[in-house]
Amino acid sequence: MTIAPPNPGVAAAARARLAALAAPAGALGRLGELAVWTAATLGKVPPPELRNVRLVIFAGDHGVARHGVSAYPPAITAAMVRTFVAGKAGVSALAQAHQVAVRVLDIGVDDDLAGLPAEVTAFKVCRGSGAIHLEDALAAATCEQALEAGARIARQEIAAGAQLLLSGDMGIGNTTPAAALIAGGLGLPASEVTGRGTGIDDAALLRKQRIVDEAIARVYRRLGDPVDTLAALGSADLAATTGYLLEAARCGVPVLLDGLMSVACALTADRIEPGAGAWYVAGHRSTEPAQSLALEKLGLEPLLDLGLRLGEGSGAVAAVPVVRSAIALLRDVALLADLAP
Amino acid sequence: MTIAPPNPGVAAAARARLAALAAPAGALGRLGELAVWTAATLGKVPPPELRNVRLVIFAGDHGVARHGVSAYPPAITAAMVRTFVAGKAGVSALAQAHQVAVRVLDIGVDDDLAGLPAEVTAFKVCRGSGAIHLEDALAAATCEQALEAGARIARQEIAAGAQLLLSGDMGIGNTTPAAALIAGGLGLPASEVTGRGTGIDDAALLRKQRIVDEAIARVYRRLGDPVDTLAALGSADLAATTGYLLEAARCGVPVLLDGLMSVACALTADRIEPGAGAWYVAGHRSTEPAQSLALEKLGLEPLLDLGLRLGEGSGAVAAVPVVRSAIALLRDVALLADLAP
Repeated sequence: MTIAPPNPGVAAAARARLAALAAPAGALGRLGELAVWTAATLGKVPPPELRNVRLVIFAGDHGVARHGVSAYPPAITAAMVRTFVAGKAGVSALAQAHQVAVRVLDIGVDDDLAGLPAEVTAFKVCRGSGAIHLEDALAAATCEQALEAGARIARQEIAAGAQLLLSGDMGIGNTTPAAALIAGGLGLPASEVTGRGTGIDDAALLRKQRIVDEAIARVYRRLGDPVDTLAALGSADLAATTGYLLEAARCGVPVLLDGLMSVACALTADRIEPGAGAWYVAGHRSTEPAQSLALEKLGLEPLLDLGLRLGEGSGAVAAVPVVRSAIALLRDVALLADLAP
Repeated sequence: MTIAPPNPGVAAAARARLAALAAPAGALGRLGELAVWTAATLGKVPPPELRNVRLVIFAGDHGVARHGVSAYPPAITAAMVRTFVAGKAGVSALAQAHQVAVRVLDIGVDDDLAGLPAEVTAFKVCRGSGAIHLEDALAAATCEQALEAGARIARQEIAAGAQLLLSGDMGIGNTTPAAALIAGGLGLPASEVTGRGTGIDDAALLRKQRIVDEAIARVYRRLGDPVDTLAALGSADLAATTGYLLEAARCGVPVLLDGLMSVACALTADRIEPGAGAWYVAGHRSTEPAQSLALEKLGLEPLLDLGLRLGEGSGAVAAVPVVRSAIALLRDVALLADLAP
């Protein structure tokens, strides 16, 4: 299966409108290109205002977190899910400032999350995923279940009127499987993809590189199959994110990507069904090297580079106003023809 | 005169709150630093939401525009003032999207602007400014008048409740005096400060460099005096912008800078009264090399780099949501102490 690109006729009409605006050629810079992409993905020139932007945060635990790859203990994952539900996390603050709806879902948290609303755990497929240097993250059937859960979640968000979808992540240790997915997908060594996550020291960085190396060596022959790679090197939350991003592209709904986890899943989605990447735009440059490598492969350049390394979807939410700026320019600037006396 | 810095006690309290948030150290990146600056300039921790952001566009004509330095004829300046009043320019669209109040003022447009509301021309000091390679842009008295007009305008905006002030520009040919002001202020040759403005060809770029060179050579001995430099190499609209930025700093109101013109005036303001620059933050990286050179001198790094070269204050307005993101994080994220069981 390949995925059809955003409407070429609408893109051409958007380009024509851009050229007809009462502004010097090229003066809108990247906002001009972004406006054309937004119009094409939304199927309308000029594009409508963004009144329904929706973020889903996929939470899960990772076996590697018990092997010294993170600055934080695994129990923080469940604690942060509670913080999202309470609306008190970093991304909650940004989402409120920029009118983005937030939904947090436990896909694979190693905790019962007792006392939280049932919808938070409605898509849970497992309690934690395997330590990828020792075993597959997920059984094949569980991986399929997580992919399908992500697709169902995307359809629910689209049914709720989403004009633009965002993905966010929560899971102590998750930069290790995300880096491994990118290394596996691009054929790169661990040393090129591994970064310091939320702030590990040199010793932990070396451990993390060795774990990514061992994980890739363990499943080397299976890397040609992106779904099998996801089961081997990913996690339940990353598989669900991939299913969500893939379904958005299949349904023709644009996506604003976040940092490392979001982009690792976007790369995987585009490997599973080529063409998916044309429905994505990059919100924020991660400090993790693997994100830039995957974005380059996808042909994407982030809109923001503010040094955020909070995860949670925060980089995507911070970039929503940039998309709104692009839309406003293509919608509301006078046409040169209308100004002429 | 030097200008007092933003409140150091409030800055320290903001830094303490930042460190106490339920987020990994440094995870907010530049938004953390920006939140501290915003709190210090607004005098409050956490900083208040930005509900009153105000942009003033200073319009004027430039003698050099008749000497082949621009891709557009001088008559466009007056036409664009009418487009701002009609709310149909690029910056109008952005300002509406991001709730920024816009005021356009004719400071030195070479046109009567008949039929426009009287307040648009209430601060007019001249019809056009001199061609800086041949003569001073302004007589000393006119320059003082324009500086004082800018200060009065700033006081009006502050009286209207401005929490954050922005400056924008309109004037065909204005990148030539702005580049000359920066070259004069930093002691740099024309070749380092001159760019293509709204899109001139190689021949026009060479003419523009020669004009900047000749202008600087003409007034070389006067460059130690920043007000005299402004009269010699600037224009009425740039002098008014400088007065506006200077008064904002004197009154302790933060400013979000725009592109080349805004930053040339910020540099001049900081030369006139050292310390003014501490009240400014940079919104958007200009494609003009002189802007980056002046920002480096001021110790500022732009929040956005989207390739905009529209002028009008558009880069500052596009960056307003970034400031709102920073404020939201310092205001609304839980403190770690409040999350502990």
